[in-house]
Amino acid sequence: MSLATKDLLGLENLTQENIEIILDNAKSMKEVLGRSIKKVPTLRGKLVVNLFYEPSTRTKSSFSLAAKRLSADGMSLSAKRSSVVKGESLVDTARTLRALGADAVVMRHGVPGAAKLLAETIDIPVLNAGDGAHEHPTQALLDLFTIQERKKNIAGQKVAIVGDIKHSRVARSNIWGLNKLGAEVRLIGPSTLMPEQIEDLDVEVYSDLEAGLKNVDVAYLLRIQRERQDKGFFPTIKEYTKFYGVREKHLKLAKEDALIMHPGPINRGIEISSQLAYDEQSVIEDQVSNGVAIRMALLYLLIEGGNQDE
Amino acid sequence: MSLATKDLLGLENLTQENIEIILDNAKSMKEVLGRSIKKVPTLRGKLVVNLFYEPSTRTKSSFSLAAKRLSADGMSLSAKRSSVVKGESLVDTARTLRALGADAVVMRHGVPGAAKLLAETIDIPVLNAGDGAHEHPTQALLDLFTIQERKKNIAGQKVAIVGDIKHSRVARSNIWGLNKLGAEVRLIGPSTLMPEQIEDLDVEVYSDLEAGLKNVDVAYLLRIQRERQDKGFFPTIKEYTKFYGVREKHLKLAKEDALIMHPGPINRGIEISSQLAYDEQSVIEDQVSNGVAIRMALLYLLIEGGNQDE
Amino acid sequence: MSLATKDLLGLENLTQENIEIILDNAKSMKEVLGRSIKKVPTLRGKLVVNLFYEPSTRTKSSFSLAAKRLSADGMSLSAKRSSVVKGESLVDTARTLRALGADAVVMRHGVPGAAKLLAETIDIPVLNAGDGAHEHPTQALLDLFTIQERKKNIAGQKVAIVGDIKHSRVARSNIWGLNKLGAEVRLIGPSTLMPEQIEDLDVEVYSDLEAGLKNVDVAYLLRIQRERQDKGFFPTIKEYTKFYGVREKHLKLAKEDALIMHPGPINRGIEISSQLAYDEQSVIEDQVSNGVAIRMALLYLLIEGGNQDE
Repeated sequence: MSLATKDLLGLENLTQENIEIILDNAKSMKEVLGRSIKKVPTLRGKLVVNLFYEPSTRTKSSFSLAAKRLSADGMSLSAKRSSVVKGESLVDTARTLRALGADAVVMRHGVPGAAKLLAETIDIPVLNAGDGAHEHPTQALLDLFTIQERKKNIAGQKVAIVGDIKHSRVARSNIWGLNKLGAEVRLIGPSTLMPEQIEDLDVEVYSDLEAGLKNVDVAYLLRIQRERQDKGFFPTIKEYTKFYGVREKHLKLAKEDALIMHPGPINRGIEISSQLAYDEQSVIEDQVSNGVAIRMALLYLLIEGGNQDE
Repeated sequence: MSLATKDLLGLENLTQENIEIILDNAKSMKEVLGRSIKKVPTLRGKLVVNLFYEPSTRTKSSFSLAAKRLSADGMSLSAKRSSVVKGESLVDTARTLRALGADAVVMRHGVPGAAKLLAETIDIPVLNAGDGAHEHPTQALLDLFTIQERKKNIAGQKVAIVGDIKHSRVARSNIWGLNKLGAEVRLIGPSTLMPEQIEDLDVEVYSDLEAGLKNVDVAYLLRIQRERQDKGFFPTIKEYTKFYGVREKHLKLAKEDALIMHPGPINRGIEISSQLAYDEQSVIEDQVSNGVAIRMALLYLLIEGGNQDE
Repeated sequence: MSLATKDLLGLENLTQENIEIILDNAKSMKEVLGRSIKKVPTLRGKLVVNLFYEPSTRTKSSFSLAAKRLSADGMSLSAKRSSVVKGESLVDTARTLRALGADAVVMRHGVPGAAKLLAETIDIPVLNAGDGAHEHPTQALLDLFTIQERKKNIAGQKVAIVGDIKHSRVARSNIWGLNKLGAEVRLIGPSTLMPEQIEDLDVEVYSDLEAGLKNVDVAYLLRIQRERQDKGFFPTIKEYTKFYGVREKHLKLAKEDALIMHPGPINRGIEISSQLAYDEQSVIEDQVSNGVAIRMALLYLLIEGGNQDE
């Protein structure tokens, strides 16, 4: 069981088979996390570098933890501390990382395609931890894992993604992944927050929250990314909250056992009410736990899979 | 030997028995630190999260080191880097930490009671590393340990705390701890730096340094926390130094074998003279060493003690 | 095989024999790095503190990694986060580090002689990771190692150092090291970037790039440190690039198998052309890899060597 790819750059170009291999492997990893000693020696002595050009708490911590659980060594370079500020290019950094003996690089970067550029420069696995508004594949994989865990099957599930689809790498990766595994995807939001080339995606678009949530199996609420939008954008936070903030009454429109998901961190009282966030149908904490398992699976498959091929 | 408490929030609500269990356990931990390999596998695979909303070098390093010595994994989230800046509330952070598989959280926060709030939200141990001007229990415990190590007994010792008692969480925690273990506590400082509800505490107050230091067993000098005081405060640093800065001549008023203590980092030439800081009666470096032992004991007792109860 | 010195402060005062012991030991360490598990238990339980008062990515990462490869525990204090901002002096910090149980301290500081001051205060090994414009001994040692690896012998090699010699601790340390091992050193650069007491050094000075590179075995290009120079300095970056930027045509003046070296990070198109940086004669990535081996050797020799003497 190995991936036929050196890197994890996005879900657009990941085959259904590869997605399934990752989800299967993450299941085994989750068993490790359930033990009293949550650690295996699988990647002992391997070096996983976190290269973050944008701030991140959750994704970075989750990757660090995944590396620790596999007994790998970690090293963190953040934009401010890294030599990037000295003008060193991404390619030079890549060569330095390889020379330092890195076995894999986890990168977050503000520019779409940055992970791909790095992957082409360096012969070790690159894991995209978010590249601009392009993709955030590990988030989508942990989301798929969470749906599968609760619903057994992803195929046939009705999944509504609510919010700022246009600027969301989380939405983009999830749409690709859900489509590949046979889910039915709805996008809910105002037209100003919808991607421009909507016709390329296999989705249904709703501008009305209530209509969009009707009968869904999963309501996936995106975080309003204030920092990515110009001042004076439309809708305002207040308008968004009024028309697209999901409250208890909306949940009743969905199927009885529908899941509430959110990539975190939540804006309580904006895209989601406090009550819903910790409702028993909410699987937001499961998503966080599963993120560690997914990242363990990816590090294992990409680092060890690669070595076995050599 | 286990603590009858999930968390370490402060010394006000810690029983004398619990304090003694911690001091005893720290004694064993100090033996580990004295070996050539200062590491034991006790907490292998456990995850200790440092959640610091205020900057800290010493306390944070000491906790990190304590975790390492017990073979636990560490993870650090600081305010600037954490999702707090994105508006995520303490409760949301707590749930995320639990979902990530944290086995204990060490938190420093600017608001009194923040550690208690966190402890009520999360079912894993919370260790208060300082909450505003409220408590700093691990500092007080290491201070008690240091006094006990040198004086055999804490009961009956005359301990003078000198400085800005009003704004000092270190003083507050020490007063509770010293009282519980039967020491006689004196507070020395100008009235502007004394707490308002002085009558609730079992202490003697001195505004005159020389009178206060007479015949004491321990002179505990606080750091003047310039950042916590308004501009134009009284006394000024210059006035403070003149009237409350402890010099060699003052030490002669105390008992012959009196200890000089300071929570660090010292302001040389202000609250303490350079000469006194490294005098043979000074145990400032012992306090630092003992801090690691105390934190090892607490992590062990709270993480492993808790597990054994389940 | 042990070093007759507690610390590594600079190459000016390191004997030829000590340099050779370090280079020999680094060779063994490089074999460790070549294995699939690049880790040995040599320094298990030892604590290596990185004390960085100036930002650094490469040197700090390289030291951290060296410590990890030897299974030592690491702790990082940076200027902003350390208590230095609270006014604690270097000496106080040293005492704190010792009390925390540090087994070695790696320090970078903006002031020449800072490492020496620290070394005199503390009884554990101090490794100078750069002290102002004074010395950067680990960089020079990894450079010597790289030359020896490629050229078998350092004695007799013609090495041209190009650039801002005056402000470069890398140049200074390399000159001492190359001289001690019998290389012939040339300095190339405008007179404004030459050190004032040039007559103390065993070097030949060239202001003309082409004359200086003629027949050399090694062209060592320094990074233009813009931050170390006043505004309106001479030459400007543009002038420097024109007269001292090394391009492919310049390499033809050197020996056929000449090496191109650079301490990194490179300023592409300024001191070195992009093409040359990744030319097959460039050993810039070897320098990075060898840096880890050299630092492993130093940590081992200084920490373990010291313990065996006791």
